Amino acid sequence: MTIVVYPGTFDPITNGHLDIVRRAARLFDRIVIGVYEKSNKHLVFTTEERVELVRLAVASIPNVEVKSFSGLTVDFARKEKAPVMIRGLRMNADFEKEFEMAMMNRKLAPDLDLLCLMARQEYQFLSSSLLKEVARLGGNISDLVPEHVAEALRKKVHGTM
Amino acid sequence: MTIVVYPGTFDPITNGHLDIVRRAARLFDRIVIGVYEKSNKHLVFTTEERVELVRLAVASIPNVEVKSFSGLTVDFARKEKAPVMIRGLRMNADFEKEFEMAMMNRKLAPDLDLLCLMARQEYQFLSSSLLKEVARLGGNISDLVPEHVAEALRKKVHGTM
Amino acid sequence: MTIVVYPGTFDPITNGHLDIVRRAARLFDRIVIGVYEKSNKHLVFTTEERVELVRLAVASIPNVEVKSFSGLTVDFARKEKAPVMIRGLRMNADFEKEFEMAMMNRKLAPDLDLLCLMARQEYQFLSSSLLKEVARLGGNISDLVPEHVAEALRKKVHGTM
Amino acid sequence: MTIVVYPGTFDPITNGHLDIVRRAARLFDRIVIGVYEKSNKHLVFTTEERVELVRLAVASIPNVEVKSFSGLTVDFARKEKAPVMIRGLRMNADFEKEFEMAMMNRKLAPDLDLLCLMARQEYQFLSSSLLKEVARLGGNISDLVPEHVAEALRKKVHGTM
Amino acid sequence: MTIVVYPGTFDPITNGHLDIVRRAARLFDRIVIGVYEKSNKHLVFTTEERVELVRLAVASIPNVEVKSFSGLTVDFARKEKAPVMIRGLRMNADFEKEFEMAMMNRKLAPDLDLLCLMARQEYQFLSSSLLKEVARLGGNISDLVPEHVAEALRKKVHGTM
Amino acid sequence: MTIVVYPGTFDPITNGHLDIVRRAARLFDRIVIGVYEKSNKHLVFTTEERVELVRLAVASIPNVEVKSFSGLTVDFARKEKAPVMIRGLRMNADFEKEFEMAMMNRKLAPDLDLLCLMARQEYQFLSSSLLKEVARLGGNISDLVPEHVAEALRKKVHGTM
Repeated sequence: MTIVVYPGTFDPITNGHLDIVRRAARLFDRIVIGVYEKSNKHLVFTTEERVELVRLAVASIPNVEVKSFSGLTVDFARKEKAPVMIRGLRMNADFEKEFEMAMMNRKLAPDLDLLCLMARQEYQFLSSSLLKEVARLGGNISDLVPEHVAEALRKKVHGTM
Repeated sequence: MTIVVYPGTFDPITNGHLDIVRRAARLFDRIVIGVYEKSNKHLVFTTEERVELVRLAVASIPNVEVKSFSGLTVDFARKEKAPVMIRGLRMNADFEKEFEMAMMNRKLAPDLDLLCLMARQEYQFLSSSLLKEVARLGGNISDLVPEHVAEALRKKVHGTM
Repeated sequence: MTIVVYPGTFDPITNGHLDIVRRAARLFDRIVIGVYEKSNKHLVFTTEERVELVRLAVASIPNVEVKSFSGLTVDFARKEKAPVMIRGLRMNADFEKEFEMAMMNRKLAPDLDLLCLMARQEYQFLSSSLLKEVARLGGNISDLVPEHVAEALRKKVHGTM
Repeated sequence: MTIVVYPGTFDPITNGHLDIVRRAARLFDRIVIGVYEKSNKHLVFTTEERVELVRLAVASIPNVEVKSFSGLTVDFARKEKAPVMIRGLRMNADFEKEFEMAMMNRKLAPDLDLLCLMARQEYQFLSSSLLKEVARLGGNISDLVPEHVAEALRKKVHGTM
Repeated sequence: MTIVVYPGTFDPITNGHLDIVRRAARLFDRIVIGVYEKSNKHLVFTTEERVELVRLAVASIPNVEVKSFSGLTVDFARKEKAPVMIRGLRMNADFEKEFEMAMMNRKLAPDLDLLCLMARQEYQFLSSSLLKEVARLGGNISDLVPEHVAEALRKKVHGTM
Repeated sequence: MTIVVYPGTFDPITNGHLDIVRRAARLFDRIVIGVYEKSNKHLVFTTEERVELVRLAVASIPNVEVKSFSGLTVDFARKEKAPVMIRGLRMNADFEKEFEMAMMNRKLAPDLDLLCLMARQEYQFLSSSLLKEVARLGGNISDLVPEHVAEALRKKVHGTM
């Protein structure tokens, strides 16, 4: 049985993330989504909220589980007994950053492999940060996130932001 | 009559921005420069100061107007009845960022088109942030901004910065 | 009246090119598409065929004209009395090439400006060369080119290629 | 049982390719390496030779099979009943090319997914074309390819090249 | 006698930096490492600590000196009577940033030249910021920095961070 | 005494190359320009012509020598007893190619170091291939190459090309 971890901040989960999860869920036996615990004031949602938004989003996919984690991603993968980590890849400036992390992770955990799934064309230019900026300024984001995420984002934006 | 908007932070306006404005002013009937209102402490100039510096810089170009705006850029363009937005394009790391925004804007406002003007060779490597860093450290920036901007920057730098 | 030239090889014209033409035709008074004459055996279509395929594709847009040209692009623009040249910009490896050409053209013709229109998301990854490779290998390209171009391409492919 | 195809030209197979195969073979049930048939005079080895060199290189990995193919890669994957195609990803200029192909392939075969494995650090800068150039000029390539490939390359180089 | 300056933040010095120093020390008569004074709370080490860590790291290389500096890098080079500044170059997103700075520096000091040394393959993906993140999360960084730096980093991480 | 080699095709030498030579000649004791012997019909000038054009261009710089070479660049450097090779670096698509070659060369000759000099702003977008294309189409290239090179190029272009 091949377990894969899919780590991220998911602040919040987008349709782009969700597409990666769905594609991975067809290829591997079990997907463990790792929501990175960060007490970072730049984040819009708390760890608990982010986990909950992801959980609702993937509720209908049977072989997916959601957990929060802190510490190194490679340690999270090891704990979950996952030989593989997956990442969505968008054709953007963060690509080199991905490479840096991939090479560092391989150094830290030579047995953990990294599989990248290229983002679908319609999600190539969708990032969580751009999404939040648009939401903050009153733009319509309903095509880009699941319904419950759009609602949660609207509440946050009309509240403290 | 074709109206175009040229949005930006302009903290402060540089000769690179000014070159884009001049070139656009020869091609289109009316240019509305939109200075983005941000109460961001990382900015050196207030919105009012930024608007004023831009205004002085473009005073001699008849078909250019300067306004401040908040909210989504596409909403600013709509309000100004501009079917086109222009951007200067430098060959640098922010290029992918431009693409992300362009694709998002097209989603938010399918009828608003984006025209990019490539920065002239001498301004390819000129960014407002690098400019401010150099000014702060005492470097000579007189070739890179209009005279009144250089002076305003010098005052800020010797003052609170 | 602002005339713009849109130069290219158009071997053959794709829906991506066509989208650029349509968008430009809404912004400028007259568009002159310049089909570059090249007796290059790597091309699939002759200059005459390429011009004809473009002509059919733009037949319904009133302010567009199609011509073939040889020599420097800047000389073609000058002859057409166009102060502006337009280019479609895709987020790909040829971006630097575009910059090189843009800077060279500015050197050769300082008064000719270049406007770039970013390719629509669905055409970001569509190049004439990839298109021809797919057609050659029997892939379905009907979504990517006008109907008459698909047919012409099929004939070429089943013929000499 | 998950079958994956790994298509390529393999002219010739390098240690970088081999690393991708080994990593994929640990994650998936069966790997079908697809050697692309091309009667291209720029290639150093014939299709038969390339297939044979790959076969020898992967002989010790039980769940790997080698086949040649022509036509579209997505059709090869379909014929092999593989829901996944894998590619090695190096941090280089061909990255955008990969994206173009990936997006086109998804258009041609929406159900076929693409998984990318990032090249190991020591193979990041190893391409078949650079390898051949070095071999041709008499450089030592023994660390970069399996022993039998180095020998085959030496023979070719001292022969007709 | 050719003096070169090697400016940087060095928070902290890594084996990648050290490799650049060693290579430069073989080519030039005297290397002056310039540690940039910044009272930036994002830094892990104070200026004094950073200077000290660099000093220990280069103690065995006779023609290397370590100084801290503030103000423009080009002014530091001038004060040190160095006609050349060196930089390590990694194949990553900061490359364009390097170009921007290089062009700006040439404007500020036309006589100061910039020499870039490409990072060795094993250090291509090593940045101080990634290093600190890994250390903070408990990863093993002993291969990536000199022994005394690893120890200093461990102390900082277990202390205030 | 530090000898450096500066290898290239120089088909033909441009003002960009010449700027690199002049800057290197101020920093190192002796520069050996290596003109790569290639009997490639895509080249405009023969090896002898290319060497001669370079020689005339650098005649006034005392510590520069011009030689042709074949085989591996690292072997040429070794024969010339040069511990360093220099390259001009332009901010363009070939950057990754440079990295590939640099890493391969380091593998082939670990003791040979590579120093990169960033092209001056006015030469950032000047490549020999673009130059030749412009010359072929009748464009004015007199600012981009030494006078005698412009003349030689004009002769070639009006002759066989």
